[in-house]
Amino acid sequence: MITASSRSARRRPLALTAVDIDDDFWAPRRALIRTATLRQQEHQLRTGGQFEALKLSWRPGDPGEPHIFWESDVAKWIEAASYCLATTADPDLEAAVDEAIELLAGAQQDDGYLNVYFTVVKPGERFTDLRDAHELYCAGHLIEAGVAHFEATGKTRLLDIVRRYADLIDAVFAPDGPCAGGYDGHQEIELALVKLYRVTGDSRYLVLSRRLIDARGTQPFYFELEEQRRGTPGYFGPVFPQRPRQAQRFREYNQSHRPVVEQDAVVGHSVRAMYMCSAITDLAAETGDPALAEAVSRLWEDVTERKMYLTGGLGSDPSIEGFGPAYDLPDEHGYAETCAAIGLVQWAQRMANGRADGRYVDVLERALYNGVLSGASADGTSYFYGNPLASSGDVHRHEWFGVACCPPNLARLLSELQRYVYAQGDGEAVVNLFVQGEARFSTSSGTFVVRQQSRYPRDGVTKIIIEPAVDGQRHVLAVRIPGWSRPTATLNGAELPLTLRDGYLVLERDWAGGDTVDIDLGMGIRRTWAHPRVASAAGKVALERGPIVFCLEGVDHEEPVRGIVLDRSAELTERPDPRTGVVSVHGTAHADHAVTDELYSSRPPSQVEVELTAVPYFSWANRGQSDMTVWIRENLGR
Amino acid sequence: MITASSRSARRRPLALTAVDIDDDFWAPRRALIRTATLRQQEHQLRTGGQFEALKLSWRPGDPGEPHIFWESDVAKWIEAASYCLATTADPDLEAAVDEAIELLAGAQQDDGYLNVYFTVVKPGERFTDLRDAHELYCAGHLIEAGVAHFEATGKTRLLDIVRRYADLIDAVFAPDGPCAGGYDGHQEIELALVKLYRVTGDSRYLVLSRRLIDARGTQPFYFELEEQRRGTPGYFGPVFPQRPRQAQRFREYNQSHRPVVEQDAVVGHSVRAMYMCSAITDLAAETGDPALAEAVSRLWEDVTERKMYLTGGLGSDPSIEGFGPAYDLPDEHGYAETCAAIGLVQWAQRMANGRADGRYVDVLERALYNGVLSGASADGTSYFYGNPLASSGDVHRHEWFGVACCPPNLARLLSELQRYVYAQGDGEAVVNLFVQGEARFSTSSGTFVVRQQSRYPRDGVTKIIIEPAVDGQRHVLAVRIPGWSRPTATLNGAELPLTLRDGYLVLERDWAGGDTVDIDLGMGIRRTWAHPRVASAAGKVALERGPIVFCLEGVDHEEPVRGIVLDRSAELTERPDPRTGVVSVHGTAHADHAVTDELYSSRPPSQVEVELTAVPYFSWANRGQSDMTVWIRENLGR
Repeated sequence: MITASSRSARRRPLALTAVDIDDDFWAPRRALIRTATLRQQEHQLRTGGQFEALKLSWRPGDPGEPHIFWESDVAKWIEAASYCLATTADPDLEAAVDEAIELLAGAQQDDGYLNVYFTVVKPGERFTDLRDAHELYCAGHLIEAGVAHFEATGKTRLLDIVRRYADLIDAVFAPDGPCAGGYDGHQEIELALVKLYRVTGDSRYLVLSRRLIDARGTQPFYFELEEQRRGTPGYFGPVFPQRPRQAQRFREYNQSHRPVVEQDAVVGHSVRAMYMCSAITDLAAETGDPALAEAVSRLWEDVTERKMYLTGGLGSDPSIEGFGPAYDLPDEHGYAETCAAIGLVQWAQRMANGRADGRYVDVLERALYNGVLSGASADGTSYFYGNPLASSGDVHRHEWFGVACCPPNLARLLSELQRYVYAQGDGEAVVNLFVQGEARFSTSSGTFVVRQQSRYPRDGVTKIIIEPAVDGQRHVLAVRIPGWSRPTATLNGAELPLTLRDGYLVLERDWAGGDTVDIDLGMGIRRTWAHPRVASAAGKVALERGPIVFCLEGVDHEEPVRGIVLDRSAELTERPDPRTGVVSVHGTAHADHAVTDELYSSRPPSQVEVELTAVPYFSWANRGQSDMTVWIRENLGR
Repeated sequence: MITASSRSARRRPLALTAVDIDDDFWAPRRALIRTATLRQQEHQLRTGGQFEALKLSWRPGDPGEPHIFWESDVAKWIEAASYCLATTADPDLEAAVDEAIELLAGAQQDDGYLNVYFTVVKPGERFTDLRDAHELYCAGHLIEAGVAHFEATGKTRLLDIVRRYADLIDAVFAPDGPCAGGYDGHQEIELALVKLYRVTGDSRYLVLSRRLIDARGTQPFYFELEEQRRGTPGYFGPVFPQRPRQAQRFREYNQSHRPVVEQDAVVGHSVRAMYMCSAITDLAAETGDPALAEAVSRLWEDVTERKMYLTGGLGSDPSIEGFGPAYDLPDEHGYAETCAAIGLVQWAQRMANGRADGRYVDVLERALYNGVLSGASADGTSYFYGNPLASSGDVHRHEWFGVACCPPNLARLLSELQRYVYAQGDGEAVVNLFVQGEARFSTSSGTFVVRQQSRYPRDGVTKIIIEPAVDGQRHVLAVRIPGWSRPTATLNGAELPLTLRDGYLVLERDWAGGDTVDIDLGMGIRRTWAHPRVASAAGKVALERGPIVFCLEGVDHEEPVRGIVLDRSAELTERPDPRTGVVSVHGTAHADHAVTDELYSSRPPSQVEVELTAVPYFSWANRGQSDMTVWIRENLGR
């Protein structure tokens, strides 16, 4: 069940079943996904109307009008559940998934069409509001679910359903079809079609994906043509007045302002942008087209060097859920939607595998351990939609949202984490993330097992033990060495030179069973500064340790955390929680202290000495509401 | 034409015609209002549909559907123009005003009703959507315009029109009327009715105003009853999805969450709040009801000590155009609508006059010279809606807005500035603001002229020359001494003891012609700090001089202005512009300087020495777009 190898990508993920994860950090979180998160989400889908709507019994005037996003909620939940079922038997969950699939089967029309909203709420209006109505977006998630369910369970029921739907879409968007030249307002189906191609081998899906990407942004603009044809505002037309009205800004919002291969700055809605970039990267790998590869290189540099939060969060402008100008990264009043960080993880994986370059994994890891993980509560049942880098104490996680993209998206990412930990190249076993467990690589001479012993990110020490199918098997082991680390490494106790190749320690040799690579990343507390053009971080410093970004949380401090000032020379110490192993950072700092109740005064605040406690950003808002900041004011002592 | 004295207010404004303003600061700005601003606004009203709509010729399906706010745009323009006409003959402007009034007359229905939207767009739906549809809001502005036009010109044409409309409203909102218990979703008519009472002496209008205020926030909630009766969402129901949906937050949005006399924190939409507080203060003055006076005292303290920007701007939450929690005053991502600062000026005047307390004028002056004045460009023809305290350089003033409340509101405030400069009490002439010109107080023994010679706010030196009608006339002269000042004063050259009474230097004596009070406020550059709970100002200092708040603007600096750090001990000098007299502040500071192109780095920015230039906040964004900050990072040199 390893997905088909792409033409020019240098590496590919392992199958879920080829990897075990049994560490202290991820394994409990992944178990929670299956035992708590997916159950709670199933409850939401059953009580919120998503399952019920698939019965197509809604009639105009009834309460609970089906929502345009609902198939995507169901699909992402099926996808996440499938990943769980791939490795863990869970009859209850499997039965619920099968029930949902039968509901989808029942909602599918004779011609393969599968979208409740345009079947019962707006019949006769299929594919007339591509810009706003999320029809292809939902289709994409259904396709991803179908692929995931097949790969996980071997069952073809949902895969067959989504193939029929994809075949219909292929006809509708064919060069001589009724929607020739059209494309999705919320990119998603493009990457899903590549997955469908890989699992079925049917190149029509790859061609369709490419067609949608190539059509995007060409003139005349399809969304404007469809609006003229339709003669009514799009679904969001009257609903989002604060979305920029000007045509150009709306085009940028969904990245249809210019042809994809000509885009050189990441703009607009950040989840749309990440899904689109993932698809382009897939297409670049499948087709070898350098124009596509160059486009994603430009966009990657723009997003990671000018528009990414320290947490890997994306999207500074809440009014468009998307990107602002370069270096515009407000801490409290940004957006950093969980789904955008997830999208960055997905894109980064494609870049890393396509180019065999560990620097992409550095970004992936940054987003995963910070901007993604903060999206869920410690108990796995409540969620942030936005993940700000500072707070006045007025936000908390919610159990669900009207537009519920983030909760199931998080569930599906963590459920397929295996695919991010390792990758396989030509005669090459790749360790991308330090996660205790085991990976079984398939080689021409049998399996090549890589076993990690690690307490990462609690510390940076990882023991990698090799078990080849036959002793003396020649193989490359590539271990990613994070850019932030100060590593040392030994092979069977002998020190290894740390010459890296594109961010990897590359060991090519004849391996014997029990060969051991010990790596110590030198995981100290690091001070990190932002570019001076990032106004929210001016005069401030962030604390990092390994992949973890820290924050100050109000529950640990008496004074407002944004009033805390850390001397640049102040000594910082780390302290693991005796119960959870989570490391916090401590030191002595100062804090502003009010000398008057006046709102504005000619007397400055005094400064009091305080004990600073910094905790992992992902863990914040689990101990009640309080203020928070990632960027800490710094005193240079000049 | 002095408005009727209220029962318990201790002071009242002078008539427009009793005051001349001929200083360097305000006089040119006021001339610009008449010669440029009102002309440009008239052009907007003629071309934007507002005038045309009053012909009631719009039919369903026609373009240019009349907007619910349009009468208020016309009314505020008439009001501002009337204030100009009170003191300056301008036949063209007068003709345009008369034309607008005839259009209003033509739009008035037989029963006195006067609202285009509910006459041609939604006939039969009068007074059914008080929460959202701004019907009474528009009526209030029409009433204010009618009063202003009568007071300024002596013509009763518009006053008669609005009286007929007010009489209809009085009947509709009578205890036995169809809208018994109702009140406005956007407060405005309440203060207008007090004005109408004062100019007509008809106490029905005062009673109606009180009735609307008293009904507000009582249970069952009127807006929920009307929604049930109507059976459809309000005008804003489907339009503003980001406005909080929960009933409680929507109630707070329009301050109908609890009875007015029980409110103790200012919440919700800031312009609504300011207009409501102005009306309550008026009613407290007219009725002497201590419950009303206590309510505004509590709300005043809450707004000025916990929720006001240093500029006098109000409203930190753009999503509701209103107040956030206490101390929540984001600089770049707040709101600080020009109209809210204008509303604060209006309210502060009522508090100051009602209580004869100069501390209210300190707030009035802060808002007037900063948060209000920043709302218009130097040439008086483009406007800010929001007035943030920091910017990344992505905002500029616009010529007009879809909802165009701010431009004519600014015009009417500056056109009636005379009323804010002086006040008259019982045998008392009050100088509230330092503005060169003359005021003619009417006393039992004739006029008592107060003449100011001043270059304020260029410097703090003001000469006040008294010309009583008869020498030896006994009178009180009360001169406000700002809380920020370090004043010295002489009377005819002899030093005066500076014992203040509620913020005023009070001189009671027999005045002789030419008696002169010289006041020097000691207008140095001041450093001002915010309460440590104001996160956006943590570690920062603001520069003030006299009533002026300063800012750093990108056009004066090479490095980002929020990267500039000022030593607490750094010497600052002031420099008047040789052409305009506007004083800027200068000093040597440091600025962060990038040492790498990396977005995040383990190397901190270096610091370079820079020349700091701080300019008045009101003047920013007149030299092209660039970044800006009021709060300047501070180095304590600890």
